[in-house]
Parts: sequence; C-alpha cells; structure tokens
Amino acid sequence: MPKQELAVLGQDGVDGVDGCPPGLLTAPLDDARSVELAKVFKALGDPIRLRLLSMIASRAGGEVCVCDLTPAFDLSQPTVSHHLKLLRQAGLIDRERRGTWVYYRLLPEMTDRLAGLLTRPAGQPLPQPAGTAGDA
Amino acid sequence: MPKQELAVLGQDGVDGVDGCPPGLLTAPLDDARSVELAKVFKALGDPIRLRLLSMIASRAGGEVCVCDLTPAFDLSQPTVSHHLKLLRQAGLIDRERRGTWVYYRLLPEMTDRLAGLLTRPAGQPLPQPAGTAGDA
Repeated sequence: MPKQELAVLGQDGVDGVDGCPPGLLTAPLDDARSVELAKVFKALGDPIRLRLLSMIASRAGGEVCVCDLTPAFDLSQPTVSHHLKLLRQAGLIDRERRGTWVYYRLLPEMTDRLAGLLTRPAGQPLPQPAGTAGDA
Repeated sequence: MPKQELAVLGQDGVDGVDGCPPGLLTAPLDDARSVELAKVFKALGDPIRLRLLSMIASRAGGEVCVCDLTPAFDLSQPTVSHHLKLLRQAGLIDRERRGTWVYYRLLPEMTDRLAGLLTRPAGQPLPQPAGTAGDA
C-alpha cells in the first residue's frame, strides 16, 4: 500500500480545522500536496479503472477475485492487471494473494478522503455570479 | 459549460435511490458513465489544474481574475489558459469575460456530485479483510 500518498492526503501535518487537512475547495493547494493528489485523481481518470474500482467497491463480500474482474472486460489479463496496479499505487485498492488467485478490496480511507476534499464546508454559499468582482 | 458531462453525471435517468445516481462505490459503473466520469477525474489528475481549481474555489469573492491566477505559476499565460480550458470542459469551472479580463468561478454542482459519488452509503461497513472470500 502506498503509505506516501495516504500520508500526504490526510496526515502530513498541513492540517486545517479539527485535525483535518484543508479541503480542495477551502484553501489554495501547495505544490507538494497537488502533486500527490493529482496522482490519485489521474488513477481515476480512466474508464476501465473507474469500472474496476466500482466493481471492487460495490462487491457484497468486500473483495473480488481477479478471476471475476477480467471476464467483464474485452481486455487481456495483463492489461487488466496493469490498471489494477495503478489503482493500487494510488492507494485506492489493496490486494491479497491466496492460492492461485489474487483478491482485491477497496481502501475506503482514500475514497473517504477524496470525498472530504471535494465537499464544501457546511454553510459555504454558492459562488456569486459574475458582476460583483473585486478584481476589476 | 459542458452540459453533456453535467447531465451524464447526475441527471441521465440512471438514477439510484432518492433520485440520485448510484455512487461509484455502490454499483458497477456502466460503460457510458465511466467514460464521462473519467473525463472529469482526468481533468483533476494534474497538479497545476488542482492548484488552479483550489485557488478559484477558495477565493472569498467567489471568482478570480485570470490576471491573478497566472502570476502564481511559472508558466506562460497560454499554458495556464489551456489548463483552465480543460477544467472548464470538465464542467468544474465557468468563466465570464468582462472588459479586458476573464473571471473564473467554481461550478460547485460538479464537485458536489464527485463528492457524492465517492461517499460511502450511510452505514456501509468497511470491506472485510481477506480471509472470508466467497470466490475461492
């Protein structure tokens, strides 16, 4: 599991209120944090990986055998494995090998963090429409 | 504003409970939705664009003059404008030209939707650790 991303996204000491890092919508991101966050969003920026993630995350038992993922795609097993590797490197999923097969599961801490980063602080109004700028 | 993405992400009739589309974590995404969603995440998958979005979203007045964004980056104005265009095409920001300058503002409907898609349904337990698989 890529501890580095997990740390940067939530526990790096650049905390906002209540021990939580400032959200994407509440303060300008600094360089380092934007680089780390971009890696995770980039991993989500592919239709195959989004489908894989949704299949893994929505599985009733909490995990999915790679043998059940591959047949859902018109792709080779190595290609599917490559996409799974990118999701894993982004800290979105983890895997465990048992016997012949590898089983994947969601790492909900990461999706929770992304959801939090994209959530407006309670009570934050919608941006005012243009016409009230202070920058003219 | 790219109405197409906005529609696909929330109002395309593929609704789940309470009129909301099923989240990324609750059901496998279909092909069309994964393609549209991937475009938005891909737009977020770049450090410069994340920094631009956070600068725009966190601005007190709700909008930012492009003349205030460009100096924050060691990039040419056309390059910054290109990144802003990708954010706009993804439905994350909108712009308005007034006089000499262009002003950008967040489209919070899109970030709200992404946050919703990444949020676990209330009461959903964390995935069970490996060892209880039904797929062996």
